[in-house]
Amino acid sequence: MSLRDDALHMHKQKQGKLSVNSKVEIKDREALSLAYSPGVAEPCKEIYEDERTVFDYTIKSNTVGVVTDGSAVLGLGNIGAKASLPVMEGKSALFKNFAGVDSFPIALETNDVDEIVNTVKLMTPIFGGINLEDISAPRCFEIEERLSRETDIPIFHDDQHGTAIVTLSGLVNALKLTNRSLNKIKVVLNGAGAAGVAIVNLLYSFGVKEMVMCDSRGAIYEGRPNGMNPTKERLAEFTNQKQIQGGLEDVIKDADVFIGVSIEGALTEDMVKSMAEDPIIFAMANPNPEIMPDVAKAAGASIMGTGRSDFPNQINNVLAFPGIFRGALDVRATHINDEMKKAAVVAIADLISEDELRSDYVIPDAFNKEVAPNVAKAVAKAAMESGVSRIKVDPEEVYQNTLNLTQ
Amino acid sequence: MSLRDDALHMHKQKQGKLSVNSKVEIKDREALSLAYSPGVAEPCKEIYEDERTVFDYTIKSNTVGVVTDGSAVLGLGNIGAKASLPVMEGKSALFKNFAGVDSFPIALETNDVDEIVNTVKLMTPIFGGINLEDISAPRCFEIEERLSRETDIPIFHDDQHGTAIVTLSGLVNALKLTNRSLNKIKVVLNGAGAAGVAIVNLLYSFGVKEMVMCDSRGAIYEGRPNGMNPTKERLAEFTNQKQIQGGLEDVIKDADVFIGVSIEGALTEDMVKSMAEDPIIFAMANPNPEIMPDVAKAAGASIMGTGRSDFPNQINNVLAFPGIFRGALDVRATHINDEMKKAAVVAIADLISEDELRSDYVIPDAFNKEVAPNVAKAVAKAAMESGVSRIKVDPEEVYQNTLNLTQ
Repeated sequence: MSLRDDALHMHKQKQGKLSVNSKVEIKDREALSLAYSPGVAEPCKEIYEDERTVFDYTIKSNTVGVVTDGSAVLGLGNIGAKASLPVMEGKSALFKNFAGVDSFPIALETNDVDEIVNTVKLMTPIFGGINLEDISAPRCFEIEERLSRETDIPIFHDDQHGTAIVTLSGLVNALKLTNRSLNKIKVVLNGAGAAGVAIVNLLYSFGVKEMVMCDSRGAIYEGRPNGMNPTKERLAEFTNQKQIQGGLEDVIKDADVFIGVSIEGALTEDMVKSMAEDPIIFAMANPNPEIMPDVAKAAGASIMGTGRSDFPNQINNVLAFPGIFRGALDVRATHINDEMKKAAVVAIADLISEDELRSDYVIPDAFNKEVAPNVAKAVAKAAMESGVSRIKVDPEEVYQNTLNLTQ
Repeated sequence: MSLRDDALHMHKQKQGKLSVNSKVEIKDREALSLAYSPGVAEPCKEIYEDERTVFDYTIKSNTVGVVTDGSAVLGLGNIGAKASLPVMEGKSALFKNFAGVDSFPIALETNDVDEIVNTVKLMTPIFGGINLEDISAPRCFEIEERLSRETDIPIFHDDQHGTAIVTLSGLVNALKLTNRSLNKIKVVLNGAGAAGVAIVNLLYSFGVKEMVMCDSRGAIYEGRPNGMNPTKERLAEFTNQKQIQGGLEDVIKDADVFIGVSIEGALTEDMVKSMAEDPIIFAMANPNPEIMPDVAKAAGASIMGTGRSDFPNQINNVLAFPGIFRGALDVRATHINDEMKKAAVVAIADLISEDELRSDYVIPDAFNKEVAPNVAKAVAKAAMESGVSRIKVDPEEVYQNTLNLTQ
């Protein structure tokens, strides 16, 4: 059977990928009186008196909402809320398999920013965090920003930050291997969607100084007359300081790093040849990268990563989001801030020791069991140190619990 | 330890009562490619082509949303969304334990009818049904009505209909035992909240002709100058046809049946004595009934039911809602209509054979394993016959599956 047949068969046979189970057996009156009436009134009263105890008495402390509007699903585009559900259930399945996080998919039948923000705000009581998924740019930026400001739980758009974090992990290791440092490289980023914007922001917070971002109209610079929006205007303030104009073929010259979150074929052999010595290329277009690895290597690329599992150095979000939410939940964080994202980058990168680093191994394997525990530990620690945790925990315990949850 | 200590300890130790589990193990690339990218695109495309297949490829076909605004929680009143969560999780635990239904609690931080309706509408894609819970009257009526009209999945406010269905089951059996028929009795109902209104409506659809409903101002009649609202106006059209005015003590005279969903002590010994011969009394005020069973019996009551598990004939919603949603989900129903409610009443009543009927056994035990399978079967059958099912199934299979799911 084909992958298509296998996938359809599996989904149909199981009728979806999740189940909601009761942690209590209710087989007799005594159990009923504890889990439901009249005993259940007691935790209700406690939470009413002190709403912080909602983390103690309910599933909130381990539960994440996976929220989408179905507007940018995989490579399929705006297929709507219902058709997006298999992906959202899959995300929840990954949360559970990789970090023991309970999560529930909520697909909203609207593309309206105000409606999405308002709906998510109203339903936050049960959730300890919200993973935004497959929401198209630029709406995803406003939605995440407003929800972060207007709720008291972590809001994390994985298509932005998950991708950015894993990309940065790979880049950190690639630079180690080629003896370069973040503050001295020139990075060209192609694609100004959700992931591109988040990568540029994270590069900046890691101290990268020379960055040029391109969209379909070429280099983005301050005051560019066409195709700008508030997000791009803001990016133009700290990227492309030399105000270079022109297409990718112009700005790519002498770049140390190319990061592509755009379309198949966007990067040519000649462009690679025009880059600085030993260029690093992360070509993440889906399903086919901006340039194929063998072509890039032949043109001089020293390190090559893609989004695909059939090539080395796969930039796979599953390395990031399970551990990030695990760590955030374990300290009952109010936000996922830059410090936590940076801690995740380092934790993922550090899973490969300097001895082990090779050009085809700068990013850990998605099924490396050490990833989520280490990310969770680092993220929990960063949350506590940066003041966005509600409780203090021992990071070692976060590590150990995550390991136990995923055995 | 006290019940209070036990309940708090259990909730804290388990950190809530639910878990969301993955039905697929994702331990290697192959599993990942089926459950997530790239294989997951296939069911997405199928649903995009034909949205009815969302029932085939996702958890929708077995998943119910338990939705509240926390405005009428147990006897605690408007304690808010967060404090209501232990009850909602308990409801979900009951759904799973009693009928194998997956359900997820959504507590909304608003009491605004428009916001509640709009929010629930937007999040329906993942749900095969919505159980409204602990929403105060009269808002609950409008919310249920609008959602029933504006969505294509069953909307069921359990505090209304669950209570009404189980009450009617008990009444049907009580009348059998005392040789009376529904269309010849006089029923007085005290309390015009969510449950009271639903009970009166269901009594009417069962052919009861003489009903008087009382609220805190006494009998409700057409054109009463004070304390009316649109719901009561509508009830006044088909109840109290003799336009009797006065308090409960006036209208209770010669009644065959008293149904109380009001407050402790509302029914006195003298009132019982003024009722018709062998009166039937369902006194469901919580936590203490309108009249205590021993007092009612001494005053002449022939059959007595309450909401409490420590007296005979407990009117417990758990007899109804798990099987009702089980049956509705199994035929992918669009609504839970009167025919389905009536089928549930009869299915519950019929679990006690005429030989077994006794004055202290007119309602089956909450832990009788035959209840949910029989209710599910009857509800599925009624849904198919009344034209609100999306698919046809064999009712016997619904029975057997439900039995298997709850073993």
